[in-house]
Amino acid sequence: MSEYIEHNHNGISVGLVEKKFYTLAGPPDELVLASGARLGPITVAYETMGTLNGDKSNVILVTHALSGDSHVAGYYSADDPKPGWWDTMVGPGKGIDTDRYFVICSNVLGGCMGTTGPSSPNPATGCPYGLDFPVVTIGDMVKVQKALLDHLGITKLLAVVGGSIGGMQVIEWTISYPEMVASAILMATTTRHSALAIAFNEIGRQAIMSDPNFNKGNYYSGPKPDLGLALARMVGHVTYLSDEAMRSKFGRRLQDRDNLAFDFDANFQVESYLRYQGSKFVQRFDANSFLYISKAADYFDVGLQHGHDSEVDAFAKATAKIFVISFSSDWLYPTYQSRDMVKAMKKNGLDVSFCEIEAKCGHDAFLLPNERQSTLINRFLNRVSEEEHDAL
Amino acid sequence: MSEYIEHNHNGISVGLVEKKFYTLAGPPDELVLASGARLGPITVAYETMGTLNGDKSNVILVTHALSGDSHVAGYYSADDPKPGWWDTMVGPGKGIDTDRYFVICSNVLGGCMGTTGPSSPNPATGCPYGLDFPVVTIGDMVKVQKALLDHLGITKLLAVVGGSIGGMQVIEWTISYPEMVASAILMATTTRHSALAIAFNEIGRQAIMSDPNFNKGNYYSGPKPDLGLALARMVGHVTYLSDEAMRSKFGRRLQDRDNLAFDFDANFQVESYLRYQGSKFVQRFDANSFLYISKAADYFDVGLQHGHDSEVDAFAKATAKIFVISFSSDWLYPTYQSRDMVKAMKKNGLDVSFCEIEAKCGHDAFLLPNERQSTLINRFLNRVSEEEHDAL
Repeated sequence: MSEYIEHNHNGISVGLVEKKFYTLAGPPDELVLASGARLGPITVAYETMGTLNGDKSNVILVTHALSGDSHVAGYYSADDPKPGWWDTMVGPGKGIDTDRYFVICSNVLGGCMGTTGPSSPNPATGCPYGLDFPVVTIGDMVKVQKALLDHLGITKLLAVVGGSIGGMQVIEWTISYPEMVASAILMATTTRHSALAIAFNEIGRQAIMSDPNFNKGNYYSGPKPDLGLALARMVGHVTYLSDEAMRSKFGRRLQDRDNLAFDFDANFQVESYLRYQGSKFVQRFDANSFLYISKAADYFDVGLQHGHDSEVDAFAKATAKIFVISFSSDWLYPTYQSRDMVKAMKKNGLDVSFCEIEAKCGHDAFLLPNERQSTLINRFLNRVSEEEHDAL
Repeated sequence: MSEYIEHNHNGISVGLVEKKFYTLAGPPDELVLASGARLGPITVAYETMGTLNGDKSNVILVTHALSGDSHVAGYYSADDPKPGWWDTMVGPGKGIDTDRYFVICSNVLGGCMGTTGPSSPNPATGCPYGLDFPVVTIGDMVKVQKALLDHLGITKLLAVVGGSIGGMQVIEWTISYPEMVASAILMATTTRHSALAIAFNEIGRQAIMSDPNFNKGNYYSGPKPDLGLALARMVGHVTYLSDEAMRSKFGRRLQDRDNLAFDFDANFQVESYLRYQGSKFVQRFDANSFLYISKAADYFDVGLQHGHDSEVDAFAKATAKIFVISFSSDWLYPTYQSRDMVKAMKKNGLDVSFCEIEAKCGHDAFLLPNERQSTLINRFLNRVSEEEHDAL
């Protein structure tokens, strides 16, 4: 559930990156999904930053949240107005220092930013999948990331790093491919979606599916369910902020200074903000991808899927050094959920660090510039990097 | 923002009530609203329970929340399956004891349960007002209640009692008609809507206005914006519950026991619950009324409207004995908002009692059976009643 952060590039062409594509090979070009369905071929869009070292020991995989993509940081060109979604954290000399580490980020399975998803052509028909795209899980997304790493000849990750739905992918990595993961950094995430989180996602999905343009998901050749997707995004934005953040950001400030308009236009700034966020989102995101990625998040339940309904058992095979970060005002994935997962990890004797960062801005805090978070992540990576080096 | 509570009537015809109507008289049958618009004639639907005593000193006005109506308690007939929305609190021997007090409750201006609102005929056209209905405020709603009391010959209220948007009306009463209000009970309410509360209301309104059946509010002769109104209600229901309430009520329980369906039907019980609540609501509520009442709540700002932007100044004229109740898990109108209003009242030397009730069920707590709340309200009313009697 990421939010793009806008930065002025000032015309300086630093951190140029390129979007690349890899199509999973191997007969019959199909991946068996958690549902049992088969899907293929699958193309993965990914980007890299930094330089892979000789023994390939400096790889960090960054995973993205609902609305993110492979463009984690840097610019596509010298006149690109906006860097990637986590440019405040990833880059030369930053928290995740690309002078030192080789960062990979790929668009998730089911997405709409280059990786195969519901808007991709269905090889059986030549038309976009729409709802014929199979429901995918966080585990399926991670399987595709694993295939990409295999293709790149990478067998070990110094770290997997992600927040929100990206954090779920990190958890999945520590459990499904423990031998590949030296360390893991999870921010503002949960091991299983609460009823509250499911409820908000379901409202978003209902908004999309209620839009008359939705047409059972087959809208690619006609008008799109923009109103529904905008509503879903508005709901999302409220859950990413906190009561306190909204109070300081908007309060009861009016669009027209002191005058109540006595109509149903956006009178308050918060109304205008939400309408703007909704209308901006529909320009870059596919409504079906919202359905699939939000559903994957709702289905995520690490105890059920990996531990016979025990969260402690789920982490039995994990070996990574883990750093869990929560934010005090995040009410979507509150701190108590992070504490619970830390407990489950510790019961397995894992090397786990935990930090709740005081932040007023709610769930979105992990994406915003945050000195404390950058420092903590930088130190953790340095420690792990040194320990891995010493162990060789 | 009330929720009907279902109770078994068991065939016993206790507490039979009747819906009555009063149309405000006086040339030119128009009320000047806060916006400056004129509206008339206005019909008010109201119900009473208990017996008015000789000196008319036992009157309690109950105000209702978003989806409530005049039917506060009791049954319309012996075979009526369901009592009024606050039957757990109002009735013979109950917290608000109708053996002792004469209770009046009327449907709010802008509503759709008998009082004039956007679904009422516009005398200028003979057709329903739709969006030609003027935007009304909490103050306008209270003005209409005052006119009803004038008609009934009641000059003094022993108490005004209400929760949520009903609580806003209570606050308005203490400020606009201090000489009429001996005491006031406010539950789960606020003196001004936060950005968070406005945001959720705006999402609901956008859902309704995005529905293609909305037709700029002129849908009365055709299909109604049911999908939009259902979405608005789903959003509302999430805000009325708490994280904890949803966890214990639904958790991650599936409709189909242990099996993920891998589709976009309602897999989780919480999804099914929300869809059901949405579809049930559209059978009894008018989408335009949702727009108007939610807007009135958003506009409510007691400091701005009565105190030159000072909440303390707003209560300068109030004289009522006030009892403020908040609920620990209410995140729509959190306890800190109640504490703030109590401070503002106390700075005016008002006789204010405050209680935060520990409750897991969120904002809706004030409507649910709650022994503690009933006892507290009962004691407060008895105290005020005795003190008023002694003062005579």
